[in-house]
Amino acid sequence: MSASGLLYGVGVGPGDPQLLTLKACEVIRSVDVLAYPMNVSGTSVARSIAADFIPEDAAELAIHVPMKVERGQAQDAYDSAARLISDHLNAGRDVAYLCVGDPLFYGSFMYLAARLAETQKIEIVPGITSLTACAARTLTPLGGRNDILSVVPATLDEAALKSAIAGADTAVIIKVGRHFGKVRDALHADGLLSRAVILESATGEDERVTPLADVKQEEAPYFSTILVRRGDLS
Amino acid sequence: MSASGLLYGVGVGPGDPQLLTLKACEVIRSVDVLAYPMNVSGTSVARSIAADFIPEDAAELAIHVPMKVERGQAQDAYDSAARLISDHLNAGRDVAYLCVGDPLFYGSFMYLAARLAETQKIEIVPGITSLTACAARTLTPLGGRNDILSVVPATLDEAALKSAIAGADTAVIIKVGRHFGKVRDALHADGLLSRAVILESATGEDERVTPLADVKQEEAPYFSTILVRRGDLS
Repeated sequence: MSASGLLYGVGVGPGDPQLLTLKACEVIRSVDVLAYPMNVSGTSVARSIAADFIPEDAAELAIHVPMKVERGQAQDAYDSAARLISDHLNAGRDVAYLCVGDPLFYGSFMYLAARLAETQKIEIVPGITSLTACAARTLTPLGGRNDILSVVPATLDEAALKSAIAGADTAVIIKVGRHFGKVRDALHADGLLSRAVILESATGEDERVTPLADVKQEEAPYFSTILVRRGDLS
Repeated sequence: MSASGLLYGVGVGPGDPQLLTLKACEVIRSVDVLAYPMNVSGTSVARSIAADFIPEDAAELAIHVPMKVERGQAQDAYDSAARLISDHLNAGRDVAYLCVGDPLFYGSFMYLAARLAETQKIEIVPGITSLTACAARTLTPLGGRNDILSVVPATLDEAALKSAIAGADTAVIIKVGRHFGKVRDALHADGLLSRAVILESATGEDERVTPLADVKQEEAPYFSTILVRRGDLS
């Protein structure tokens, strides 16, 4: 009986293929099976970022992870994906699961890892997150000296959102989507609206960086990140 | 008169040379001058991480950045370094400044960039931070769904430290150094001591990962990061 395969969670970074790590490229080239999340329209952002490094004869496994579903449906999707991946691992095949950004930073891989960690060997190849990508594209310090840096999901309720922003020197607000108005109001209430920028596809081909105050609610980009820094570096 | 050179802030990641990005390698190979911070004992962690990718005939510029000094001395060191770098840029030479982790994440490059941003062209090559490196080596989710993730400097006073930890689902406590006892007490008071791990040199050759509760104050590693997650992924 052959030894079990190894499952890699591979961060492919925020969008620019040149921001893959050497390790990510090596793992993508060498594993037996390449898995990645795919949305309902049949596209995979993770795969498209890594496309240049995927061997032509690679065995691929697209994992259908619905974006907006009932919790129960998402759980079923992860259960099913974990079984598919386990079958490969149990047959001795190494599998790499490609993740936009970093595998452990607000992504779907964590839910697979939670199901597989007890029975399978897992190795993480960290990736460049939207956090540092957004900072890079706007030359914004994420933190220095005594600064607190917080990553804040826009999905929080208004009070929790305001409290998290109030406690941070730099806040990176993710999952903005339909919560744009709530986030803008919270930043305005804290006197931070004029200091905030909104980024779409940071480092990617269709990157857009706009001062938040210039964006109208009806024009707010769905897949975006808001970066705001309270003051200058001390 | 030749055009001015371009200043790159290049993240070289947390320690494993395989965690450099393709872009970082390309910039290191192609610039005219490689700059990096060097400590008083004459070693440069950033340079050592990138060593395999530095051309033999590279022109190098070691920047002496004292670790623990009066604020005034540090300011003088950055002023002086900014002048040295400007001289190269003004002569049309591209310069890459190597940074451990990411250039805009609690590092010395930000203080150079603050001095040079108005007069020079700057491009950031983001790097893998200690944040994702520590998560990777312990398979700890940094955040999902509604989680707040905070990076908290141990240099904060006790009340601010406790407040920042209390507001976070995942806390990454940096600059632990001589503040170990204060951080351990704050985590203990919040019921988090048994969930915390302390990492030295995550992904590097001399990596050590230890449950925080097992570390005695007198054995606490100086250069270390503490990672703690409040609960399981929901």
